Amino acid sequence: MINTAEPMLVFMTDFGTRETSVAAMHGVVKSVDRRIEIIEATHELPPFDIWTASFRLNQMLRFWPEGTVFVAVVDPGVGTFRRACVARTADGYYITTPDNGSLTHVWKEHGIAEVREIDETVNRLRGRDTEETSVFHGRDLFGFCAAKLASGKITYEEVGPAYDPGKIVLLDIPAPVYEDQGAQGIIEIDDPNFGNLFTNISARELLKRGFHYGETVHVEIFQNEQKKLDLHLPFVAAFGMAAKGEPLLYNNELMHVSLACAQGNFAGRYKIGFGRDWKVKLSRE
Amino acid sequence: MINTAEPMLVFMTDFGTRETSVAAMHGVVKSVDRRIEIIEATHELPPFDIWTASFRLNQMLRFWPEGTVFVAVVDPGVGTFRRACVARTADGYYITTPDNGSLTHVWKEHGIAEVREIDETVNRLRGRDTEETSVFHGRDLFGFCAAKLASGKITYEEVGPAYDPGKIVLLDIPAPVYEDQGAQGIIEIDDPNFGNLFTNISARELLKRGFHYGETVHVEIFQNEQKKLDLHLPFVAAFGMAAKGEPLLYNNELMHVSLACAQGNFAGRYKIGFGRDWKVKLSRE
Amino acid sequence: MINTAEPMLVFMTDFGTRETSVAAMHGVVKSVDRRIEIIEATHELPPFDIWTASFRLNQMLRFWPEGTVFVAVVDPGVGTFRRACVARTADGYYITTPDNGSLTHVWKEHGIAEVREIDETVNRLRGRDTEETSVFHGRDLFGFCAAKLASGKITYEEVGPAYDPGKIVLLDIPAPVYEDQGAQGIIEIDDPNFGNLFTNISARELLKRGFHYGETVHVEIFQNEQKKLDLHLPFVAAFGMAAKGEPLLYNNELMHVSLACAQGNFAGRYKIGFGRDWKVKLSRE
Repeated sequence: MINTAEPMLVFMTDFGTRETSVAAMHGVVKSVDRRIEIIEATHELPPFDIWTASFRLNQMLRFWPEGTVFVAVVDPGVGTFRRACVARTADGYYITTPDNGSLTHVWKEHGIAEVREIDETVNRLRGRDTEETSVFHGRDLFGFCAAKLASGKITYEEVGPAYDPGKIVLLDIPAPVYEDQGAQGIIEIDDPNFGNLFTNISARELLKRGFHYGETVHVEIFQNEQKKLDLHLPFVAAFGMAAKGEPLLYNNELMHVSLACAQGNFAGRYKIGFGRDWKVKLSRE
Repeated sequence: MINTAEPMLVFMTDFGTRETSVAAMHGVVKSVDRRIEIIEATHELPPFDIWTASFRLNQMLRFWPEGTVFVAVVDPGVGTFRRACVARTADGYYITTPDNGSLTHVWKEHGIAEVREIDETVNRLRGRDTEETSVFHGRDLFGFCAAKLASGKITYEEVGPAYDPGKIVLLDIPAPVYEDQGAQGIIEIDDPNFGNLFTNISARELLKRGFHYGETVHVEIFQNEQKKLDLHLPFVAAFGMAAKGEPLLYNNELMHVSLACAQGNFAGRYKIGFGRDWKVKLSRE
Repeated sequence: MINTAEPMLVFMTDFGTRETSVAAMHGVVKSVDRRIEIIEATHELPPFDIWTASFRLNQMLRFWPEGTVFVAVVDPGVGTFRRACVARTADGYYITTPDNGSLTHVWKEHGIAEVREIDETVNRLRGRDTEETSVFHGRDLFGFCAAKLASGKITYEEVGPAYDPGKIVLLDIPAPVYEDQGAQGIIEIDDPNFGNLFTNISARELLKRGFHYGETVHVEIFQNEQKKLDLHLPFVAAFGMAAKGEPLLYNNELMHVSLACAQGNFAGRYKIGFGRDWKVKLSRE
C-alpha cells in the first residue's frame, strides 16, 4: 500500500546535478502536491547505461518501506517507441520507469506482480509552454505521473492500462555457476567511489561449499574470454583484515563475493571493468 | 503568495558539495525554523559564472509552485559593493540573490515586479562567532534572510527597502535573428552531463518558418567570428531518431533548438563552448 | 534535547553519490520512522580521510539547532576493532560515528560531555538478508541506530553503555603559535571547490596583534620542513579587494586566516596540500 498520507518519491536518474533540469522535475512534483517528500537516490548513473540502472534500483529497493514509489529514469530511447510504465513488485514497491531493461534485476530478485503503461493523455504534464518537446519525460511524464500516484491523486489502476509482465523488456544476465571447489560468474558492477568490484557470485554459496574467511582464493578475470588478471587473494570479512593497499576478496553489502584493495582502488589499479563481458573464476587453492 | 504554512526553500549555488559549508548554510535555515523544507537545485554551478547562474535559475523557475522562495548565490563580489536583494517576479516567485547579473534571464522571461535590498542590520545572522567574516553571505545573509521570509518570520516588505527594478544589474544577452530560410543566435548554455548544447533560437519560430522534423539543416558555429564547425544535421524530435553516436539538431526541453549526439557528447566531440562569443547560424538546405 | 517530534538526521560520509548505497542507508532510516527528515551534509569526503571528516563535522556543527543528531561515517576500519559510538557534545549535539579520530575537532572546539558505544545486539539492522555482511555499518549500524535515537524509539541511554570520553580516539592536531609580528600554524584543510586553503591560525589573534586589512603579509609554506612557497600577499576582508586572479590572504568563514586567488584556485595554482605536514608561517613586512 502506498502511504499517500505521507507521500514520498525516490528518484534515480542519469541526469546529473550540475544544472537545474532535476530541479525542474522536482518543481513539477511539488506543483502536483507540496507535501511530497523528494529523496534523491542518485542522479549520477553513467549516462545511457541501462544495465547499471537496473542493478542500482535492485541494490536499494529492499531497504525501503513497502509501498515506496520510485522514479528510475535512464532513457536513451526517450520520445521513440518504448513503453513508459509503473511496475508493482511482488513485495509491494512501485517503480516508474521506461520499460527498456531497467527492471531486469528487480524482476529477477523481487518479481513483478503487475505493470501498467502510463496513459499520456491524462498523466502527462500540460502547460508551462513545453508541451511540444519530447526529450524530457523524467519531468513531463515519469515525475509527474509518479507524483500523482504517490500523493493519491490517482490510483495505481489510473496510471493506465495493464499489460503482461511477461512482456517487460529484460536484459540478458548470465547466472553464476557453482562447482565443488569454486564458482564462475561475472563482474556485475563497480563501486565507482571506492573502486570495489561486485561479482554476481553469492558469498553464502561459497561458504556452503567450504570456503572460509582467512583462506586464499585463486581469482581469474577475463574480458571477452581473454585473461586480464590472475591473483591469489585472501578471502576476508572486512577490509581491515588486509594490509593497507592490498587486494582482497570479501563478502559485500549484498552478500556477493567482491574485490577490493584495502583503502585503495581495485578497479583503477588493475583496470578491470564490469558487465556481461567480464567473467570471473574463483577456485580454492 | 508565499506558503508559510509549509515553508520551502530552493537553493542554487556554486559552492560545491564536497565539504560542509552548504550544510552550515542549511543548519542556519533549520535554526530559523525547523519546518523549512530544503530543496537542492544544484550546488555545482561553474565557480563565479554569473551567466550560467542566470540561465539555470530561469531554466527551472516556471516549474515550481507560485510563491516559491529561491536562494541563488554565485557571488564573486561577496563582501564588496553589490546589492544583496530579494526580487519578486511578475508571476510571483521570490529570488534571494546578489544583484550582479544573476537575474538577467528571469528578468527577460518572467519580469521583475519588485526588488528589495536586504537590510543587514536585521536580516543577517548574528552570533556563532563568525560575525566579522565577509566571505560567506550564502550562509550569513541570503540563506538566513530567505529562511525568515519563507517561514513568515518577516514579510516581503521587511526584507529591506525597495529599489527601482530598472536598476537591477543585467548581462547583455544578444537576441536571436530569424530569417526566411534560417536563424542566427548564440550557443547559450551547455548540458554538462550529456554534452548537449542549447542555442537561444526558438524551435517554434523555425517550425513556423517551414522547418520540419526530418529535414537536414546546415549548422555553422563561430567563436569570435571564426568558424569552428560546419555540419549538415538532421532536425529531429527525439535523440533516438538518429543512429547512435550521430550528431543531430533537436527541440530541447525549453523549446529551443539544440545540438546533441545520440547517446554521445556533442560539446566534447566538437570542442564547442557557450556564451556571447559562440554564434550559431542555421540555414535550410 | 533531541526534537523527536520533528525528527531529523544530518549525514556526512565518504560513500559518494554515484550509486545507491547511500539510498539503501536512507531506506533503512525511513523504515525506522517515515517522519525522519534526511539532510545530506556531504557524501563526497575524500575516501578513508578521517582528518577531513573530523574537520568537516566541526565546520558545520555550530550552525545547527541544539539537539541535532548527526551521522558521520568515514570508516576504513569497518568490521574490525574500533568502537561504534554516539557522542553527546557539551552544547547538546549528538554524533553517531566510528570512534576513530573523527571526533577530534569537535572534541577540541565543542567538548564531549558523554559517549556511548552502540549496542549491536539491539541497535543493528536485522533481516533484509544482509545480516552476515560486515562492510556497511553506515547502513546497518550507524544509520539504523541514529534513526531510532532521532525519532525517540530509543533514549540516548539505550544506545548502549557509556564509556570514558577521555578514551575517545583523537588525532594529533598541532596548535598554532602566535608571535608579536606573526604566527605559525598548518594548512589545516582545503576548499575543494574553490581551491582556497584554510590555516589553523585565528584571524582575531592576528588582528589583536596589530595586523590590519590592507597590509601586505609575508607568507611561507613548508611541506615536511621544505619550503614550497614564499609570497607577499595582501591581507583582505573579501576576495573582491584583490584583482581577478591575484593571490591573497583573508579571514575565512570560520574566522581563520586563509589563502585564495580572487576568482581563481590557489591550491591548484601553487600545488599546495593540507594536513599536519604542511606548515605555514605568517610575518608582518
